[in-house]
Amino acid sequence: MAEIKAGLEGVVVGQQDISFINGEVGELIYRGYHIDELAPSASFEEIVFLLWHGKLPTKQELDALKERLASCRALNDSQMKFLKSIPHYARPMSVCRTGVSQIALYDTSYQTLEVYERGTNLARADNILSQAPTIIAAFSRLRRGFKPIPPREDLDHAANFLWMLNGKDPSPEAVRAFDLYLVLTAEHGFNASTFSCRVTASTWANIYASVVSGIGTLSGHSHGGAVQAVMNQFMEIGNIDNVEPWFNGCLETKKRIMGIGHRVYKTLDPRAPHLRAKVQELSKLSDNRKWYDIAIKLEELASKNEYFQERKLYPNVDFYSAPLLYMLGLEPDMYSPMFALSRIAGWCAHIMGQYENNRLIRPRAEYIGPKGLKWTPMEERGNFGADTTL
Amino acid sequence: MAEIKAGLEGVVVGQQDISFINGEVGELIYRGYHIDELAPSASFEEIVFLLWHGKLPTKQELDALKERLASCRALNDSQMKFLKSIPHYARPMSVCRTGVSQIALYDTSYQTLEVYERGTNLARADNILSQAPTIIAAFSRLRRGFKPIPPREDLDHAANFLWMLNGKDPSPEAVRAFDLYLVLTAEHGFNASTFSCRVTASTWANIYASVVSGIGTLSGHSHGGAVQAVMNQFMEIGNIDNVEPWFNGCLETKKRIMGIGHRVYKTLDPRAPHLRAKVQELSKLSDNRKWYDIAIKLEELASKNEYFQERKLYPNVDFYSAPLLYMLGLEPDMYSPMFALSRIAGWCAHIMGQYENNRLIRPRAEYIGPKGLKWTPMEERGNFGADTTL
Repeated sequence: MAEIKAGLEGVVVGQQDISFINGEVGELIYRGYHIDELAPSASFEEIVFLLWHGKLPTKQELDALKERLASCRALNDSQMKFLKSIPHYARPMSVCRTGVSQIALYDTSYQTLEVYERGTNLARADNILSQAPTIIAAFSRLRRGFKPIPPREDLDHAANFLWMLNGKDPSPEAVRAFDLYLVLTAEHGFNASTFSCRVTASTWANIYASVVSGIGTLSGHSHGGAVQAVMNQFMEIGNIDNVEPWFNGCLETKKRIMGIGHRVYKTLDPRAPHLRAKVQELSKLSDNRKWYDIAIKLEELASKNEYFQERKLYPNVDFYSAPLLYMLGLEPDMYSPMFALSRIAGWCAHIMGQYENNRLIRPRAEYIGPKGLKWTPMEERGNFGADTTL
Repeated sequence: MAEIKAGLEGVVVGQQDISFINGEVGELIYRGYHIDELAPSASFEEIVFLLWHGKLPTKQELDALKERLASCRALNDSQMKFLKSIPHYARPMSVCRTGVSQIALYDTSYQTLEVYERGTNLARADNILSQAPTIIAAFSRLRRGFKPIPPREDLDHAANFLWMLNGKDPSPEAVRAFDLYLVLTAEHGFNASTFSCRVTASTWANIYASVVSGIGTLSGHSHGGAVQAVMNQFMEIGNIDNVEPWFNGCLETKKRIMGIGHRVYKTLDPRAPHLRAKVQELSKLSDNRKWYDIAIKLEELASKNEYFQERKLYPNVDFYSAPLLYMLGLEPDMYSPMFALSRIAGWCAHIMGQYENNRLIRPRAEYIGPKGLKWTPMEERGNFGADTTL
């Protein structure tokens, strides 16, 4: 049996031209563009076009994409009835996964044989990207005791989501902040959820099934679930004066600090400064500096600490995403779904990439159990010599 | 950049003690027992216990498991309303995936932090294993224009499914045939869907999310979707006299024959002879030998042909699963969901195994796209030098 590659760490599974990460220097590139090039100017729809088509859109192309996306946003009666039937204690990520899976049920192109033609997949990707926010916004309102608000075709992706969430015109600053969040989290190489999408697509399962795998994989607390944990941590700290005692307590008890450190980045996550600046801006506008101050203070303490310096632990994308999403009025358990709404763009790019050069992804595992056991009639069976956990 | 391991073929991702496959000699072992030991005697519930607990159950343990499983079968009103709202053209695998995802919404253990304690996961696995058949049987009846039939607690897993499907007491032979199918397809090492479950679980996503990834991955036509293609092929052949001309036509046009050949088995799939014998038995009982005769004749022609001999292409599990499921009255597009109902047993064993020794599964991919591109204002963008597929 060959050497075991635990977690497939360092194993190179294939080639892709969608995004590039250099963790040593803190570089993130989408389709050739460093995110520092994109963050100040690009809208989420431009990023979607870039990821799906490999180039920035002309005005005509962007307008066409926006129009298509806006036209797919509304849910049908069955979808709305289903959402209304969901208990309010359900986890938003379970709602997101089930709701996106449900979109597939209304796709009439299924009536014939499955097709993997690029146009079909782009149309399905439009549907998923546009309906997922409607699903999440509706569930958020329902569990708060409000009626869902239908999407508006005259708004862009970010603005429409905030509209559906709150039922009032969002401020230009809130729109730009949410749009920036979507731009920065839309794609990130071969993370676990993107890999999961590709594993599913590799059997020629369709794009719905593949995105659903991505949502499920993102929901784990060591992946997309971490943003929520960061906000819970800031709320636990509670105020600026408590940051230092809390930080020292973590050092003493060796408690892990959420939002600092990354498997790939050994320097500041390139997304963090853009998010940090936006949180600062929102703090000034809203006259609520609390979360920004706590985050800045915690970043400073960690940056001056030997333990964090030696291990190259710096704030990651979650660290400033959490206060940004908080300032937009979202509850912490909605942060993972926000991540999904954005990452659908990257997932769909990877799934279409997988179909274009498909090969079944199927590693092996070494069997270390027994062999040659003989069937024993039930009356002769005991509990000895085996796992008896019940 | 390290060597590319396309499809992860030959890469060993870890260890497991759930099942072993030796493709050269045609051996399949569940937890130490060759399936030739299990097929004649074990019930599906015994296999579920074996896979989840690592040993065959005592009578008391088996009775307790059967009671638990039977008590979880019924769906709540929201689940039934949702199923009734699904368009009849929806794909059964999309229904299966969405319906299983939906089970998570009613889990009240979610109200606190996620737990990965073994007892919680076993309880969730009971729920998934028991409710998935109710979901599938209900959708099958609804789209045929019949009312869903509630589960019965006095029947075992296989018998209860056939009861819910047809609303009449199934014959002992039909029950035994379906039970044997479930026993033989419950687990199969590190196939793509099982690997997909483990990728999802590896971020500490819960067992619902992980099983949902498995269902999605199974739905691809190069994985679980192949059974349906086998039956379509037999129906295309149509009658025993057409087997030889059809076979010769395939040879001439180099058309792939479905159900013959396997990525792992280079000899007869060890599950095939058990299924073949059962199809023969059902054929005699039902006085309909058509599909058995077609399959036997096709197997014979392939076995005598040099092309198939040289490439070691033998009937796989799908080849005789298809006529077996047909004889039980199932429509071809229900075969992949049947595969899912059975494989949930193996998936849950692997997911629980993953949690016990968890490590994030995240390979790398080589970036082959451009770098260093500069932001271009929209009015200066052209279509040159990039992907212009729209």
